[in-house]
Amino acid sequence: MTTDLGPETLTAAVIDSFKNTPDERLKTVLESLTRHLHGFVREVAPSIEEWETAIDFLTATGQKCDDVRQEFILLSDVLGVSMMVETINDEETPDATDSTVLGPFHMVESPERTLGENISPESEGEVCVVRGRILSVTGDPVPGARIDVWQANTKGFYDVQQPGIQSIGNGRGLFTADDNGEFFFRSVVPSYYPIPTDGPVGSLLNATARHPYRPAHIHFIVAAPGFKELTTHIFVGDSDYIDSDAVFAVKHSLVKPFTTNPDPEAAAAFEVASPFVEGVIDIVLHPALHHRTPHDATTKEIAR
Amino acid sequence: MTTDLGPETLTAAVIDSFKNTPDERLKTVLESLTRHLHGFVREVAPSIEEWETAIDFLTATGQKCDDVRQEFILLSDVLGVSMMVETINDEETPDATDSTVLGPFHMVESPERTLGENISPESEGEVCVVRGRILSVTGDPVPGARIDVWQANTKGFYDVQQPGIQSIGNGRGLFTADDNGEFFFRSVVPSYYPIPTDGPVGSLLNATARHPYRPAHIHFIVAAPGFKELTTHIFVGDSDYIDSDAVFAVKHSLVKPFTTNPDPEAAAAFEVASPFVEGVIDIVLHPALHHRTPHDATTKEIAR
Repeated sequence: MTTDLGPETLTAAVIDSFKNTPDERLKTVLESLTRHLHGFVREVAPSIEEWETAIDFLTATGQKCDDVRQEFILLSDVLGVSMMVETINDEETPDATDSTVLGPFHMVESPERTLGENISPESEGEVCVVRGRILSVTGDPVPGARIDVWQANTKGFYDVQQPGIQSIGNGRGLFTADDNGEFFFRSVVPSYYPIPTDGPVGSLLNATARHPYRPAHIHFIVAAPGFKELTTHIFVGDSDYIDSDAVFAVKHSLVKPFTTNPDPEAAAAFEVASPFVEGVIDIVLHPALHHRTPHDATTKEIAR
Repeated sequence: MTTDLGPETLTAAVIDSFKNTPDERLKTVLESLTRHLHGFVREVAPSIEEWETAIDFLTATGQKCDDVRQEFILLSDVLGVSMMVETINDEETPDATDSTVLGPFHMVESPERTLGENISPESEGEVCVVRGRILSVTGDPVPGARIDVWQANTKGFYDVQQPGIQSIGNGRGLFTADDNGEFFFRSVVPSYYPIPTDGPVGSLLNATARHPYRPAHIHFIVAAPGFKELTTHIFVGDSDYIDSDAVFAVKHSLVKPFTTNPDPEAAAAFEVASPFVEGVIDIVLHPALHHRTPHDATTKEIAR
């Protein structure tokens, strides 16, 4: 039946409408979406006005997006969906470094930089060195690994949030690990900051009495041939909000102390004044187990 | 715990984050949303690429919306959500005329017209008269009821879809029922048509091998003091796609034959050539049982 449908019969009818979907994976996803979405609607039994509010909210969320702002990722983040997707895709790699959310600010390419370079030349604040090794799960170094990093300045803003104040690329860098799998760069110690609150997601947090803050962190994406790409953070150990991240993304294994290194020779090697603050994280990559499946390409079609 | 969260623990943490929401209804809705949304994500276990596809799809859907296009309503329609919300809100009124979906084209005000006026002066096609009575469930007429109607032309386009070809207001009219609760107006017999397929929703239908067609219909919103507002359609009896409406909105009680009336006096009264085609629907309103609840206003805040 496809007429005279109501709460008890609509779900089967909508699922049936997808029965000729050529791509099996897309069909599975839409069937599951229909069941769960309809289950939600049946459970809360929205008034017409509430449905209109939901339509308005989703529309405003889409319209807030532009080249440097991704409000739907922010919504996914504050609803815990981003972290769930990350951890689901991380479950098979317990020996590797934990992953965490991508966040909404990986929207521009990081400038290629040489090891030791300052990623935050336009940022004031406490100078620091961030360093570590890229390793396999067997402890072998991964020379040539590509390390993409990005962070906010000490005011809590990414480059793309402050046109005219920060140049694109400030707070970002793309590095290549050396022959020992080591990486090191200069920056400023990042600060905790609020996620953008001037859009629908900010209104949602406000209406639910939730704070918008994320603990201080530096983003990493690490990639190397033969390994699974890793998206993660290093969190600054003594930051506020470590235990109440607005996007549920803290893993304690990623919280690292930023401590003072008194060694004048190390300071000279990193070309910073002595003593200096440093954060150290070794990043362990898991071997690539999976290739992109064909359905990834097919489902992507529908977004065009 | 709000750190080291994974698929099994994130749902409780996100629900807990909403615990201080001042508005109880909003809290209930968000708790239910979190459970069902997380259930969907756990079940399909999307790859990172699939999650990105979903973000892109939702963003594109929001960005397709403008003053005369509402792609999120269209998405709600093709997923059967709009019809579910309508029928849930209709369950208490079995004696009244069935409701059906609002659709995405009620975006401009219908011009005030006098009974008998042609709502489609710019449309070619078969002239028809649409008429009926607005009644209470006890069969009493509802004089002064306000009847807002809108329809596509015989090419299948609403005024807002054809700037430069149709003026805003063509195919629309706002009427007031006479002292006998009667209404009547001239128009052209509408045609079945495809919902707009040039956006993300069209891509979704294409990817799922679903047709985009809706059977021929005229939209109605009927309102009168002391009665519950009714959103519905009259469907043209012999239209294609009556049994496979792309938005699941057909109720057989709303399907009416558009038949030839041979009475020359009736033709003269309606100022049309004889014989003429007419569609007749009596619309039964249910007494208003509910007032808008305070949470409608509060949840609306978050969309601003």
